[in-house]
Amino acid sequence: MSRTVYLDGRFVPFEEARVPIMDRGFLFADGIYEVSAVLDGRLVDNAAHLARLDRSLSEIGIANPYTIEAWTRLQIDLVARNGLTEGLVYMQVTRGVAERDFAFPAAGTPPTVVMFTQGKAIRANPLAETGAKVITVEDLRWKRRDIKSVALLAQVLAKQSAAAANVAEAWMVEDGVVTEGSSSTAFIVTGDDRIVTRPLSTAILPGITRKAVLRLAAEGGLGIEERPFSVEEAYAAAEAFYTSASAFVMPVVAIDGRPVGEGRPGPRTRRLRELYLAMARES
Amino acid sequence: MSRTVYLDGRFVPFEEARVPIMDRGFLFADGIYEVSAVLDGRLVDNAAHLARLDRSLSEIGIANPYTIEAWTRLQIDLVARNGLTEGLVYMQVTRGVAERDFAFPAAGTPPTVVMFTQGKAIRANPLAETGAKVITVEDLRWKRRDIKSVALLAQVLAKQSAAAANVAEAWMVEDGVVTEGSSSTAFIVTGDDRIVTRPLSTAILPGITRKAVLRLAAEGGLGIEERPFSVEEAYAAAEAFYTSASAFVMPVVAIDGRPVGEGRPGPRTRRLRELYLAMARES
Repeated sequence: MSRTVYLDGRFVPFEEARVPIMDRGFLFADGIYEVSAVLDGRLVDNAAHLARLDRSLSEIGIANPYTIEAWTRLQIDLVARNGLTEGLVYMQVTRGVAERDFAFPAAGTPPTVVMFTQGKAIRANPLAETGAKVITVEDLRWKRRDIKSVALLAQVLAKQSAAAANVAEAWMVEDGVVTEGSSSTAFIVTGDDRIVTRPLSTAILPGITRKAVLRLAAEGGLGIEERPFSVEEAYAAAEAFYTSASAFVMPVVAIDGRPVGEGRPGPRTRRLRELYLAMARES
Repeated sequence: MSRTVYLDGRFVPFEEARVPIMDRGFLFADGIYEVSAVLDGRLVDNAAHLARLDRSLSEIGIANPYTIEAWTRLQIDLVARNGLTEGLVYMQVTRGVAERDFAFPAAGTPPTVVMFTQGKAIRANPLAETGAKVITVEDLRWKRRDIKSVALLAQVLAKQSAAAANVAEAWMVEDGVVTEGSSSTAFIVTGDDRIVTRPLSTAILPGITRKAVLRLAAEGGLGIEERPFSVEEAYAAAEAFYTSASAFVMPVVAIDGRPVGEGRPGPRTRRLRELYLAMARES
């Protein structure tokens, strides 16, 4: 099956999906994106992703080109056209095409809309069995990390540091405390069984999977603390994990080369992954 | 004359200049740019811009696809093909096209190279006669502002704040002191005739025009202080101006609605603009 991309109102072959060089996404990173997981051909927690897309667009003054219902129809159509059963739907909206100038283009300039799918093993991800290793890096990002923009160069450099160290993810650190992963939310479990993750603010992205996991943890009677945690506290944690739309709940077994707990996925992390998978199956 | 763009080794009509949606410039702001001015059909201070391009690329691990000589030949060719006598040459290099993944693509992935021209009145810019107004905004940018990357969303939002306030530029402020303009370097002239601008660091872009102006000021016997200055100090300054490849030396006559000095372009600023124009003519 050939790959199909959605671009500005049309479904086009992947090879033909191109944008003008004057697209503000290409010149200025002037755009927003979202990623929804697909499991058994169905979108996972998708309404929350579309709500965050709407919020991010609003924060930078781009009118959302579609209603939630229209987005959903397009996503479902794209998933079907690509025969996707497990993987991701990626969505990006930019401020459109205009002669290069920093300030916004004329009102009425249509935004650029791109959607594509990526096949990926999410449920039977081998990394979830062995657990992931992470390193810590300095958080170089801008001050509005609550906006899911395509200005991702700092995250690219962080992830590349992880790749160069042969680990799966980089946790970003600012003022001695972990903000979040380069494309995930960071969690630890303390020795007294508390699940700790940083509270929402402009310093981190409001993770959709983060929110679901906190709800599932609360429903499961697990203790939760929303507060920053230091790198030293992470080194000493009983368990650690990260969450994202594509990783779901990913156990962390080493941080900066130091084993976390016993160096294998912890029981609370495994339990949360199971709870999340059950939720995803039902969604 | 139809507009011609340079894209990945070819000169193509503007309308055909498109990049794949998987270009890392479009998805991740994973790229670098430069802008050189053109006056009387000739590039201004261009070697310095190409050196900064090389340095920015190196800082994010993209191999410079061309030598300085090859870049220069391509720029001159593009200027001629577009019959440009006054304006800009814009250059952008991204990490190329690859399936979406934060970490760098496989070694050998060719970078994307784009160049285009924009006609613009630089010498006889009416704003240089009346002087520009600026506002101050919070500096939201990342921590490596010495790299001229296309992750420009914070600058876009700053410039749009300026446009919404009907002024030409926004000066960005962090910890009470001015960092720089959204697309320029900020200067003030104190009551005792010192030209003040922030020293180079990762907090600001190493401005090419900034460097030339500091050299010209020193040659002209003007006192220079490279140090941060506060917003209050800027309000109280005798003169103010900003520099960029396209604005050259631009007098600032109001900051946040408060007149600077007598509210018209100051004598030292006008002198520096004349010196810069003379240098540009000779380059």
